[in-house]
Amino acid sequence: MIFFDSPNPAPNPRRVRIFAAEKGIALPSRELSIPAREHKSPEFLALNPRGQTPALQLDDGTVIAESVAICRYLEGLHPEPPLFGTGAKEQALIEMWNRRVEMILMPPIGAVWVHTHPFTARLPGRNAEWGEANRPRIEEAMRFFDAALAGREFLAADHYSISDVLLLTTVDFSTFIGMPVPEDLTHLRAWHARVSARPSAAA
Amino acid sequence: MIFFDSPNPAPNPRRVRIFAAEKGIALPSRELSIPAREHKSPEFLALNPRGQTPALQLDDGTVIAESVAICRYLEGLHPEPPLFGTGAKEQALIEMWNRRVEMILMPPIGAVWVHTHPFTARLPGRNAEWGEANRPRIEEAMRFFDAALAGREFLAADHYSISDVLLLTTVDFSTFIGMPVPEDLTHLRAWHARVSARPSAAA
Repeated sequence: MIFFDSPNPAPNPRRVRIFAAEKGIALPSRELSIPAREHKSPEFLALNPRGQTPALQLDDGTVIAESVAICRYLEGLHPEPPLFGTGAKEQALIEMWNRRVEMILMPPIGAVWVHTHPFTARLPGRNAEWGEANRPRIEEAMRFFDAALAGREFLAADHYSISDVLLLTTVDFSTFIGMPVPEDLTHLRAWHARVSARPSAAA
Repeated sequence: MIFFDSPNPAPNPRRVRIFAAEKGIALPSRELSIPAREHKSPEFLALNPRGQTPALQLDDGTVIAESVAICRYLEGLHPEPPLFGTGAKEQALIEMWNRRVEMILMPPIGAVWVHTHPFTARLPGRNAEWGEANRPRIEEAMRFFDAALAGREFLAADHYSISDVLLLTTVDFSTFIGMPVPEDLTHLRAWHARVSARPSAAA
């Protein structure tokens, strides 16, 4: 098994590293530099035609791309602790919160990153007006998660789950692009401090 | 259990109806009209603060929102046939293809719909340039799925899975907004004919 990784601030490979750390799994890995465009090399495109990290190549040659898919594979191999939940209801609520992070918070962050950030200025098809229109949506999305976290220790379940991994990496990437959590979102900030204090967050 | 549904062309409630039909599950349902804004009523917002259908309210009051989360709940209750797959590898590949539909094909369709379609003209924050820029991305995404389907009967596994449900409903919604599958994408078109011929597609 080889894990194709990229260093921070790339948020998606970090999801898998945190997940593996929570499980106590050591993944043999190869690091691809995104600034050096190593994820767009012909060799890597042959493995993942999307040209994105993370990706996990199994010993039979199968390549699993997409952060959450890799985590789900690791959950199958190492069920404990059950970070995708136990039982139909808990598993469904974790899926719901995963999707809310992906569908509500990540898109405006991605839009600001791709369409306004100096680091991505060389990308084609930038639309600065669209990027700027997404700044208030980041804060609006963060307010939704703040409200959801009132009185809760973790996002989706009564224990740490992959939903916390997704929200943590997404919030940290938002800070990286210059859109940190507003001071008055005390529930989200307290949750962020809690999950950031776990050893896995250093991944 | 009550399933909060909305009629076609809304793609997300249809996912759950197809999934339930494949499982042979009859869901007691209540229909909310999106044109009549019934999904934004105070009563429904109290159940799902996102104001979106589908949503599933359980007998204990828990509300599961998000189409794939509802499907995962139904899979837990009715494991056969296993539409989320069996075993770590197959489950991970289905997750990968689900995410590819959501992350590659659905966003440009959503952007064209929200930012250019006459039906959504009353929505605030439209950016027609951004909408138009997404038209070629729909075709580009469809080409990716066409290539992936060469020599395959189903998208993610050697049997019908939720990934096929997501791709079917997304392609059909693209047709609804005026962006059908190009004629030369023969693999995608043949797959679409196959999955559309299943009784569940009428849902």
